[in-house]
Amino acid sequence: MTGPSSLGPAGPAAAPADGLVRYRDSGVDRGAAGGLVPQLAQLARATHGPQVLGGIGGFAGCFALDAGAVGDPVLVSSTDGVGTKIKVAVAAGRHRGIGHDLVNHCINDVLTTGAAPAFFLDYFATGRLDGAVLLELVAGMTEACQAAGCALLGGETAEMPGVYGIGDYDLAGFLVGLAARADLLGPERVRPGDHLLALPSSGLHTNGYSLVRHLLARRELSYDVVLPGCDRPIGALLLEPHRSYLEAVRALRELGTVHALAHITGGGIPENLPRVIPDGCRAEVDATRVSVPALFTALAALGPVPEAEQWATVNMGVGMIAVVPPETAAAVAAAGGRLAGLQALPVGQVVAASGPDRCHLDLGGRE
Amino acid sequence: MTGPSSLGPAGPAAAPADGLVRYRDSGVDRGAAGGLVPQLAQLARATHGPQVLGGIGGFAGCFALDAGAVGDPVLVSSTDGVGTKIKVAVAAGRHRGIGHDLVNHCINDVLTTGAAPAFFLDYFATGRLDGAVLLELVAGMTEACQAAGCALLGGETAEMPGVYGIGDYDLAGFLVGLAARADLLGPERVRPGDHLLALPSSGLHTNGYSLVRHLLARRELSYDVVLPGCDRPIGALLLEPHRSYLEAVRALRELGTVHALAHITGGGIPENLPRVIPDGCRAEVDATRVSVPALFTALAALGPVPEAEQWATVNMGVGMIAVVPPETAAAVAAAGGRLAGLQALPVGQVVAASGPDRCHLDLGGRE
Repeated sequence: MTGPSSLGPAGPAAAPADGLVRYRDSGVDRGAAGGLVPQLAQLARATHGPQVLGGIGGFAGCFALDAGAVGDPVLVSSTDGVGTKIKVAVAAGRHRGIGHDLVNHCINDVLTTGAAPAFFLDYFATGRLDGAVLLELVAGMTEACQAAGCALLGGETAEMPGVYGIGDYDLAGFLVGLAARADLLGPERVRPGDHLLALPSSGLHTNGYSLVRHLLARRELSYDVVLPGCDRPIGALLLEPHRSYLEAVRALRELGTVHALAHITGGGIPENLPRVIPDGCRAEVDATRVSVPALFTALAALGPVPEAEQWATVNMGVGMIAVVPPETAAAVAAAGGRLAGLQALPVGQVVAASGPDRCHLDLGGRE
Repeated sequence: MTGPSSLGPAGPAAAPADGLVRYRDSGVDRGAAGGLVPQLAQLARATHGPQVLGGIGGFAGCFALDAGAVGDPVLVSSTDGVGTKIKVAVAAGRHRGIGHDLVNHCINDVLTTGAAPAFFLDYFATGRLDGAVLLELVAGMTEACQAAGCALLGGETAEMPGVYGIGDYDLAGFLVGLAARADLLGPERVRPGDHLLALPSSGLHTNGYSLVRHLLARRELSYDVVLPGCDRPIGALLLEPHRSYLEAVRALRELGTVHALAHITGGGIPENLPRVIPDGCRAEVDATRVSVPALFTALAALGPVPEAEQWATVNMGVGMIAVVPPETAAAVAAAGGRLAGLQALPVGQVVAASGPDRCHLDLGGRE
């Protein structure tokens, strides 16, 4: 237990004029949050189909399960944040894309099991509520949910003076999807000879932002700078929303069997691809086949960041890797390699291998 | 877009000795988080029954639904945080109870619909990862999940330098429960003549902490002070975990029909009870029947906080209100008024009423 210096949001304060203390004197304005509920509920309603029972405003959201629609149903759930990408959004005053980031990050995680998104909830916490920022974020979440046929079922708004700075906030998302047990994807389906198909990312997605902010700060560069080879200011490139692979994965599954999907997030390919490679196998990735976007090479040059370190930190232009049998890889190639508009790139194969290393990344001898 | 001063976690930094920049230089240590995964997974496994498929470490958690167990299943979901109670925990260096707070807050919200908890996920974000703190939090969540027969299905750990202070963190929880559609509780079941039964809280639960910290700071009081009428230092009282009403609600439903349940959180009885009162009805609450714990009266005296303001901010000793038909109220009384060890207190009735006011709190003419 410590002394009073650690207690109040802003230390000892003057007494109000009438000598009485009210909740808002502590930096929390319940009225401000409550006043937004009708607008937030209206946004969320646009995502509600007949499965959503009741409205926003209850203590919990209710989603009627059409259990007959899938045999032996499995609920698949993931929670994610967007990391310090929030700092870039706050600096730019652009928040809608962060709503897309949050939903799409969760969708991609749930997709890896073969599940389809069903409903989403968000947790928003800030130092002092700025209604315009929250409405932009929720508008973004609503757009991403609608695009995925997913209900925005509920959320929590917390004002936490003293934990968050005045303009700062954090955001967590939680998504539940539904799969038939017999259709679950994962490492247990993967075998030697499977092909690896890489789907392009839209940028850094939601990982590596602390590193990027550090790199820019070291060089005293602002978000307005256009780095070599880039077509837009770095701030705009950094705020590009996390891509959803829902449609691409649907298109892939229509073309053939899929064994596993790895969502390439923090830790890059070396940390995420092994999560779907079983004992006795290793993924051999030819990284020289990946056309690394200028954003990544320009950022690496700022450090410089060692090449292996960068591959092990950020996605380097690959947001999802599908592990598929040779027949599916052939069907994708025959279809021109395009999946719902995204170019699927063959980047390697699964081989039989003993030892703990589940993934080998060939950087072409560059490191 | 702003200048470099807003960019890095700590502004421009010196170049590392070898002139290269690595991810950990930006204040994020992926190795530290990764090293905890086996311990976190072991804790979570203690909560896993046969419905949990696979382990921790995939991109998403899988929970097999025994859809046959309930007819016409409805998924019920809620997300919550614990507010600035975290500040008290950080000052005290006591974190396990915060894990209970988070899980139990979510359980109580989901309970209000009549659902039983199924699985839980957490999101933890901090400025710099302290493994001991995270393990204590997850140990607390595990205990609360086990007590509720709920699986800790997954979680996210985020290091966000620059958003959170070094010792600070935030925590959000997501819970999914399952109900049979025909058994859903809520305002549509409530009718004039229903009785209101109040269940005691264990303290402030997870609301009003910014106000309390403000009150203590104004008086320059530490968490070690024992306030008038209290048997323990204020810090210990403030950290008492949020009570779960799972067992009490089960006991109540075994005694008779329940129409609705209101979880009394931020905004107190006046803001939460109306959420289960339908059009054409009003809840008449005799607040003088509530034996307000000394913690609340002592805190109010510090302000002073106007009495009506305090009732409209914190729970005042009532953590849950059940709305039940007279027969159920009689059955509870015949059983000595106790529900799984908690004393259920009759505090009023639902009456027919027109007008927008869904709740009238009689404070006995004191304000």
